[in-house]
Amino acid sequence: MRRVYFLSDFGLEDPYTGVVKAVLKGRAPGVEVVDLAHDLPPQDLRRAAYALYEALPFLERGAVVLAVVDPGVGSERRAIAAFGERIYVGPDNGLFTLAWLLDPPREAFLLSWPTSSATFHGRDLFAPAAAHLALRLPPKALGPGLDPKDLVRLPLALSEREGEVLTFDRFGNAITTLTQAPPGGWVRVGGSIGRRIPIRRTYAEVPPGEALAYLGSAGLLEIAVNRGSAREALGLREGEPVVLE
Amino acid sequence: MRRVYFLSDFGLEDPYTGVVKAVLKGRAPGVEVVDLAHDLPPQDLRRAAYALYEALPFLERGAVVLAVVDPGVGSERRAIAAFGERIYVGPDNGLFTLAWLLDPPREAFLLSWPTSSATFHGRDLFAPAAAHLALRLPPKALGPGLDPKDLVRLPLALSEREGEVLTFDRFGNAITTLTQAPPGGWVRVGGSIGRRIPIRRTYAEVPPGEALAYLGSAGLLEIAVNRGSAREALGLREGEPVVLE
Amino acid sequence: MRRVYFLSDFGLEDPYTGVVKAVLKGRAPGVEVVDLAHDLPPQDLRRAAYALYEALPFLERGAVVLAVVDPGVGSERRAIAAFGERIYVGPDNGLFTLAWLLDPPREAFLLSWPTSSATFHGRDLFAPAAAHLALRLPPKALGPGLDPKDLVRLPLALSEREGEVLTFDRFGNAITTLTQAPPGGWVRVGGSIGRRIPIRRTYAEVPPGEALAYLGSAGLLEIAVNRGSAREALGLREGEPVVLE
Repeated sequence: MRRVYFLSDFGLEDPYTGVVKAVLKGRAPGVEVVDLAHDLPPQDLRRAAYALYEALPFLERGAVVLAVVDPGVGSERRAIAAFGERIYVGPDNGLFTLAWLLDPPREAFLLSWPTSSATFHGRDLFAPAAAHLALRLPPKALGPGLDPKDLVRLPLALSEREGEVLTFDRFGNAITTLTQAPPGGWVRVGGSIGRRIPIRRTYAEVPPGEALAYLGSAGLLEIAVNRGSAREALGLREGEPVVLE
Repeated sequence: MRRVYFLSDFGLEDPYTGVVKAVLKGRAPGVEVVDLAHDLPPQDLRRAAYALYEALPFLERGAVVLAVVDPGVGSERRAIAAFGERIYVGPDNGLFTLAWLLDPPREAFLLSWPTSSATFHGRDLFAPAAAHLALRLPPKALGPGLDPKDLVRLPLALSEREGEVLTFDRFGNAITTLTQAPPGGWVRVGGSIGRRIPIRRTYAEVPPGEALAYLGSAGLLEIAVNRGSAREALGLREGEPVVLE
Repeated sequence: MRRVYFLSDFGLEDPYTGVVKAVLKGRAPGVEVVDLAHDLPPQDLRRAAYALYEALPFLERGAVVLAVVDPGVGSERRAIAAFGERIYVGPDNGLFTLAWLLDPPREAFLLSWPTSSATFHGRDLFAPAAAHLALRLPPKALGPGLDPKDLVRLPLALSEREGEVLTFDRFGNAITTLTQAPPGGWVRVGGSIGRRIPIRRTYAEVPPGEALAYLGSAGLLEIAVNRGSAREALGLREGEPVVLE
């Protein structure tokens, strides 16, 4: 049986993650479900896309990745399963954009099973589909095929020199779309009237309160303030341009 | 072996949930424990009762439901195991009131094993009892039988037309005790001088900032404000009357 | 295979705990991982040391205890595995000080495997080492031996009569280093100009807003304010002296 990795913004104040697991285990007895993150900021697709990108290299090939951050539930957005080296199940809203840079889908299906609720597709549609795929049952039973090129992607790309602030972590560090951070170099944020920030190896190389950039654990350049929040101290925003000098 | 579903207000800042699981696994090696929710608002019995109601239809028959939200620990409140289609273990404080509307207990036992602590019955009494029951050992070993009619219930009922605000979710949406929400209809909250709220299918059907009612994922009428908190924007309180017009 | 108990300050907003589990399960397929706590206050070694102390008596002998609260990651602090009745894997920063009072290490090893990141040793060093040990592979493959006496300890001791405020729980209750709390007695906090607090069995024995001391679930004296925060109401701080009268 395939293992299921499960990511959502359901939080832990409600039984939603437990109910999704109960549905998975009811339909695929013995399936192993590993929680990736459930306290993601609600409906924050960039943050969720980053979390999946960060986790992906450590999820084994063949695994099912069940991801539910779904601001459009109840609207016309599609529900999908996509097949790369791993199998992706969730809403077709761009959530997998960055993960698919590492593991592009070669095949995709529309999830077409009827649902009993308009608001909890994690329970009523995605969990049953993930259980079906964990059991290695035929994906064609899920619904019609889709062209993987037509799957929704967020307007995000990774690059070596010119990028943007992708998202923030819970400490207010800015994660960017730049894939290198050569120590000793500089990065400019906020365009030509912006600010230059030195690239270092570790926090300890700048005094408390000072900004620095470094290569984060996902292999992306991050901007931080030693013992502070870069988001607040530098007034950074998502989408702000970031250029390696 | 029976699966154990585990709900509490222990939070995740402390090792309490892990310790309860260690006790379960020490006494019933191989038992599977599925977390339902652990960040429930501390000591909020209505919220916990709602969480159990919401989850119940998705928990398989024969499962053990271990629930510890226990403001009265150390006092005279009883500790119980109750048997419906599933087995309920926890304090006798009304926690299971709504779950038992769906799955009424036919048999019950007082948990009478001595405990080493006055404050952590989850670890010292409920986990050992749940392990005992997960192993399908005889419930009579737990303590004397109780009449299921004498188990404590919260003064809550579900109804089609006249009910109350049951609790709030983490977004400030009000969950009510009404079991229907016909789109196009109206609901009145706060009595005759209260406010009329239109019933819709989805959030998108009212402008941001406007109130609406809809059928939530547990099958109960909920009151929300699009992109806001109904609790704050409408000044709602638990127990406030709610009437379908 | 040995079970792994996993404690960290990674929170649940990021996929870090899930990635650590994916690494464990990739290297030791079938390993069981039990979460102890992941929302510990970031980088709070006293709180983490207390959490491990509280949990330890309930973790079976032979288990692997993987703990990652690591303010010094990227610096010169050592990474270790230590062997008592259980096996401890984590940074050598004093995290296990209190656990080792109950289960002193008799053997220790430096974790010397090269890591790909300077910032995420939980993923790149501790998880692979814990998987290695869960599989009962030889610890000598991890790195050179260390004298257990040279492992870092926090300057903390438990005592019967004279101690200090060790840490606070999420409700603002103060946990102290005193190992008894005889009901009817008194405890003094803050030295000779400090405050005397009565020792009781349960909260209910003092009026709301009043301070009391009692024996907590870890067997240590705790100071609380009934329906309040002792930390705020009494202005307590970590390290403050506490004396049983």
